[in-house]
Amino acid sequence: MIEFWFEFASTYSYPAAMRIEKVAGAAGLDVVWKPMLLGPLFQAQQGLKDSPFNAFPVKGRYMWRDLERTCIDDGLPLNKPAIFPQNGLKAARIVLALPLSARPDFVRAVYRANFVEGEVISDDGFLEGLLIRLGHSPDGVMARASSDAVKAELKKNTEEAAARGVFGAPTFFAPDGEMFWGNDRLEQAVRWARKVKNVSMDTKVDAT
Amino acid sequence: MIEFWFEFASTYSYPAAMRIEKVAGAAGLDVVWKPMLLGPLFQAQQGLKDSPFNAFPVKGRYMWRDLERTCIDDGLPLNKPAIFPQNGLKAARIVLALPLSARPDFVRAVYRANFVEGEVISDDGFLEGLLIRLGHSPDGVMARASSDAVKAELKKNTEEAAARGVFGAPTFFAPDGEMFWGNDRLEQAVRWARKVKNVSMDTKVDAT
Repeated sequence: MIEFWFEFASTYSYPAAMRIEKVAGAAGLDVVWKPMLLGPLFQAQQGLKDSPFNAFPVKGRYMWRDLERTCIDDGLPLNKPAIFPQNGLKAARIVLALPLSARPDFVRAVYRANFVEGEVISDDGFLEGLLIRLGHSPDGVMARASSDAVKAELKKNTEEAAARGVFGAPTFFAPDGEMFWGNDRLEQAVRWARKVKNVSMDTKVDAT
Repeated sequence: MIEFWFEFASTYSYPAAMRIEKVAGAAGLDVVWKPMLLGPLFQAQQGLKDSPFNAFPVKGRYMWRDLERTCIDDGLPLNKPAIFPQNGLKAARIVLALPLSARPDFVRAVYRANFVEGEVISDDGFLEGLLIRLGHSPDGVMARASSDAVKAELKKNTEEAAARGVFGAPTFFAPDGEMFWGNDRLEQAVRWARKVKNVSMDTKVDAT
């Protein structure tokens, strides 16, 4: 198992979301998809009210170029969105309103909408249309997504991320709690998670 | 050719300095060693008066753990320095006071002193002792290092870095000006620099 903590506004979470099942799957690991909100973390930890890539344009210019190179290497399309960062609150709540098995396809579709297709991912019409395309009943899902239970779960995720030392996305956790930040740490995180898993299996064998 | 822009206080510049000649050399590339100061860049670009790893402890905690993993993977020793960030001004000026061929050994020795041996790298006695160990005449080098010409050259380096979009270290530039930030981008930067070089050589061949 490897935990994948993401935020829909996060640029490097896009390539990570697109490739994590392949990279983790090749190592025999399941992915646990954990949506969170970065805004509260940026504000509490760094006093930022905007993306660091907007607050510090020199970092933003580099990030967009670096992301472009990363996407070319991964064979992924990329179109810089007109709005950045987009508000991913509703989409993150919808993730939690969907069955576990339906979440990866929805997450990838929202990242494509944000970073390729130029959609406004906070728009109810867009989100309902996407749910229909993916075979879901939009009314039921949208109602669950705005329930107190789902709102509380997303808030809890974000608080848990802060408590565990998350400060950006994507962030990966191995089962022993080891944390890895950044799309460029995915392979290392998967190696670590596999090593931990194998040690744990060896221990079980020894214990019988 | 690949340009390696570094600052002696920069943690990730340590593993980069230790491996860049091997990685670049395997691709047939020379390394151009470019000392700079990050303090003025952090202040001008982000309003920071300290390392971001001190200003934002949640990022600092992760960085030290991530650096530890990187050093283990690279077979490099690491001892977290008591002082962080250390003042690398004098050491950076000494780099520019040394002949080109002597710079890499001096740079690596200062990084080891900072991140392994617990030395105070701004201390004159330490710097003179290191110069002696490396076979230099400390008086002559120290005098050149505090000359107006060398002071101006380091200032110019730092201004050039800012003008070219540098915001952290290590930063690598390929001959076409393509910029790569971070020890974890070294291999990509070297691939890019080699590709640019080969294109340039092809063009020359075509032109004859």
